[in-house]
Parts: sequence; C-alpha cells; structure tokens
Amino acid sequence: MKFEVLILGSNSALPAHGRHPSSQVINYNDHLYLVDCGEGTQMRMSYFQVKRSRIQQIFISHLHGDHIFGLPGLLTSYILNGRTQALSVYGPEGLRRFIEVTLNLSAIQMPFELFIFEIDASQVQMIFSDDNLSVTTIPLNHRIPTCGYLFQEVRKVYHILPEAAEKFGVDYTFYETLKRGENVQLKNGVYINHKLLTRPPRPCRSFAYCSDTAYDPSIVVHLKNIDLLYHEATFSKEMGEQASKRYHSTTHEAAMIARSAEVKKLTIGHFSSRYVDVGFLEKEAREIFSESYLALEGQTFEI
Amino acid sequence: MKFEVLILGSNSALPAHGRHPSSQVINYNDHLYLVDCGEGTQMRMSYFQVKRSRIQQIFISHLHGDHIFGLPGLLTSYILNGRTQALSVYGPEGLRRFIEVTLNLSAIQMPFELFIFEIDASQVQMIFSDDNLSVTTIPLNHRIPTCGYLFQEVRKVYHILPEAAEKFGVDYTFYETLKRGENVQLKNGVYINHKLLTRPPRPCRSFAYCSDTAYDPSIVVHLKNIDLLYHEATFSKEMGEQASKRYHSTTHEAAMIARSAEVKKLTIGHFSSRYVDVGFLEKEAREIFSESYLALEGQTFEI
Repeated sequence: MKFEVLILGSNSALPAHGRHPSSQVINYNDHLYLVDCGEGTQMRMSYFQVKRSRIQQIFISHLHGDHIFGLPGLLTSYILNGRTQALSVYGPEGLRRFIEVTLNLSAIQMPFELFIFEIDASQVQMIFSDDNLSVTTIPLNHRIPTCGYLFQEVRKVYHILPEAAEKFGVDYTFYETLKRGENVQLKNGVYINHKLLTRPPRPCRSFAYCSDTAYDPSIVVHLKNIDLLYHEATFSKEMGEQASKRYHSTTHEAAMIARSAEVKKLTIGHFSSRYVDVGFLEKEAREIFSESYLALEGQTFEI
Repeated sequence: MKFEVLILGSNSALPAHGRHPSSQVINYNDHLYLVDCGEGTQMRMSYFQVKRSRIQQIFISHLHGDHIFGLPGLLTSYILNGRTQALSVYGPEGLRRFIEVTLNLSAIQMPFELFIFEIDASQVQMIFSDDNLSVTTIPLNHRIPTCGYLFQEVRKVYHILPEAAEKFGVDYTFYETLKRGENVQLKNGVYINHKLLTRPPRPCRSFAYCSDTAYDPSIVVHLKNIDLLYHEATFSKEMGEQASKRYHSTTHEAAMIARSAEVKKLTIGHFSSRYVDVGFLEKEAREIFSESYLALEGQTFEI
C-alpha cells in the first residue's frame, strides 16, 4: 500500500532562492492529505501534477502566513472548478475567521461542504481517522498556538498463506474474513484459527510533521520509532541562540529529536532564506543522526 | 525617462498551464508601482528580479481572490524584511478588513506605516499623484465593485536648446528654471522667454489597466489616445454571450475598446484557463485592432 510524502514547499517565511513556503502532500493508496498550505501551494500542485481533487482533508499546523496564505486560493479554485465533494480543514483557533473573511469577499456560493475544525493545539488528541490513517496532534513550541501532526496507518491486513489455506481446504471466499484477522468456519463445521492460515500484518507505518517549533524534547515521546519524521531546521547548528529566540530549531536540534525518538528517517526543512544553498544543513544533521535528508521541493519520501 | 509595464501574471482566476493570476509592475524611472497582487506575486517578483522594496504604492482593481490573494504574503515579507518605508494600498471597500484580518493573525508589530485607502470604484477620480505619475480610477463593469486605473505621466520637462542658450548668454545656472518652463532674467536685467531657449516637453505618456470587466464602451472616453491599454480578454471572440454573463470580455471586445479609444497599443490578458495555448487570441484581437499584443508573463511593454 502506497504511503508517501511529497514536499511542495520547505522554505521558511520568506520565499527565496526558488524555494516556497511550507506545504506537503501525503499520499496513502492514492488518498491525498494536505499538510500546511503556504502561498502558491496550488501552483506547486500543478507543477508536480498532484491531483488536488483527491484531497479531502487539510491539516494546518499554525496560522502564520507561510503556512496558510495559499489556502484562500486553493479553496477558491475548488469553488471555480465546481468541486462537489466535502472538504475538511483542521487547524488552531482563528482558522475559521481567516477562511471566512478571505472567501466571503467573493460572495460565491459554495458548491461543496466545507468543514472547518478548530482544534486545541496544546493537546495531544486524535482529531481524525479514516480507513487509511489516523491523525493525532502533537503540541509544538512556537510563538502562536502550533501543533504537529502524527499520521499513523490504521489498516491492518493479515496476509494469507496460500499453501496453508489449500492444506486446510479454505478457499478464496474466506480470504476477506482472514485478512481482517478473523477465524473461519468451514462448511463441515470445523473452526480454523486465522493464525494457522495467515501471517500477521506488518507494523503500522507512521509519519510525523513537526513545524514550526523551538527545540522541545517533550515531543519525543509522541514520535517513538516512527518511520519518517519531518522536523523543521530553520537554522544551522551554530545558531541555537537565535533559533531559540525565534521559536525555531537548528539542524542539530532536529537531529537530536530524531535520534532520541529512534525514528527510522528524518527529513528537515523550513530553511531560512539566508541560505542560498542548503546542502550543508543535511551534513550537519547527519553529524547527530545519520539518516537525515533534506526536504527538497518535488521530492517524495516513501514510508 | 523610463516608463514601462512588466507582466507578472495574466491568467484568469484558475492558475493553469504555468500561468499565474493578475499582477503587473509599472516602472517609472525606477519608481515601481504594483497593480493587482494575485497569489504568488512575490515569487514572480523574485523570478523576474523586481526590486520589491522600491514599491511604494499598490493599486488593487477589485477584491476577487485572483487579484488580491498575494497581498498578505507580500506584506508579510515586507514585515519580515524590516521594511521601514511607508506603503500605500488603494482598492475598493473591504480591502482594509481583508488586510487586517490576514495580517493580524501573526500579531506582528508593523515596522513601517501601512496606509490603506478604500476608494469608491464607481467614480472617476484622481486618487494619487507624485512627481512621476497621476493615477485616476476608471469604473469597470464586473460582478463586484471594480475599477481600472489610468496612469498618466505628470513630469513636463522642457528641453534646453544649448545653442540658443549660448547665443543669449544663458548659462547652466538657469537650466532648472528653464526645464520647468519658466522665463529667466539675466544678470544684465534682460528677461528672456523660455520659448526661445527650449523646445516643449513631449506629450505625457499614459497607461491604463482595465481588468476585470464586461465589454463597456462607456470607458472609452477615459482611454482616448493613451499609449498603452491593458484590457482583459478572458474569452475568445465567439464566446461573447458567456463573457457577458460572467462580466468578462472577449478578444474582439477588448480590441473594439482599443480601436474606439484610438490607443497606440493594446495588450490583452486575464486568459481563461480553458486555453492551453493563447496565441490565437492575439490573432483574433488583431482582426479588429492591429496593434494588439498578448500580455505574456515576464514581458515588458515600453511606453
């Protein structure tokens, strides 16, 4: 089952050097989820051929412009395209007013249902779940209410062992039951435990998005052993003081979170516009955590 | 004196085919004026190397998203860059609320004075003038209050005739007086009429921006003999009915306005996203008015 993250924009507040403000698309089995929506996100989607109509949920980390100024344009395009499918947008308090004021200007009738969920960014809570993913907030430490999001795979499919099934005379009509991890009863009345016929589902995969935040080890507990962590690294390693003052993180700090949480892979972004070239930031992160990668725009991380 | 218009974006509401929503930069002797500010305008400025700090006035035609959704991001970048110079934004009623709601979210202190002028888009009135240009509103015919803007050169510099000056014994200390079209009195008490020493200033150049609007010949009177007219041409010539319903214009309609107003040159834009290639729209406009040109992004029109 496909589970990947596409980076649409990974610069910090000032768009610069061809880099764009924050936005990512999570693709789970061709269901798309958008995370943050900086200015120009809809154009980046076109550029990277993202099928935007497939997005049904948008998760906003906080209400700084570089994470939301693309939202009015994207929603307007949905309206102009005659979208009919409902859309849900999640984010901290104030999201509703921002959307309503920016959209009401045009006095356009909504052709689809728009659900706006204002969430308490200071709480750890599961705010969404469908057949693919559950989404849990992670409180972050920024100038205004901000939360990260943990995306966890919920699908647990047991894998059929065809030889065992044949041996026990279990035909394909029982496969869906077995995939759900349920036992079966054959026509002759015999019960067979599914463990004899299947191997357990692989561990659920997970991705966490943590931007923007000062270095805050209290989030580690929520990130334990996840597959991919996006953690902001606005500044290089020697700028810890400045990062802290601005409620941002350095490369080393992002990598320390990743190492403490024992994640499989780290990707860093939200690069300061002071850096024309960001390659050295990856090297810095790897000094602490070897599986560190830049969140370059257009790049896809498979989970 | 340089007087030119750079097209940053000239697509209609849905960004498509690599084209962007409306925005133009007027450069008068390296003083920059921004007209409309669709999503992504600040990135387009970077891409085309526009020195955005030189912009002191922004003119918004109307409050549809494809003309304003780049404003919050641009203003935020000015704030982050520590701009100190005052900035004025002109546009129809509602502009203030849009800017205040979108900017107040970040609760950032303004490092510069931001003046927001809400104008009556239904009136013809001069709303601005500096040493370079005067700006006059032109009421347009759109779904919401919308105005075009007429930019007229105000500088009238008389040109010194060096041979005549020498002949009359008029030295360079009198040149500034003569350039203003004033007569001079020499040290020997003799008055000399400036007409003997100068030739008249060239006619004032002018540019008008008319987007978005249904075909409306009542605007022609305001556009008489101007040098360059930007007029929207959202649709091709055979779509007049649809254009009218949506309060937009066709290529032929834009060209008819240009011809009636006897402008020197027409440029058309605000192309519908239905057109992958827009070259044929230029041909259509030229059927009516030969000096018609596409407003292609990145193109500069000298006036």
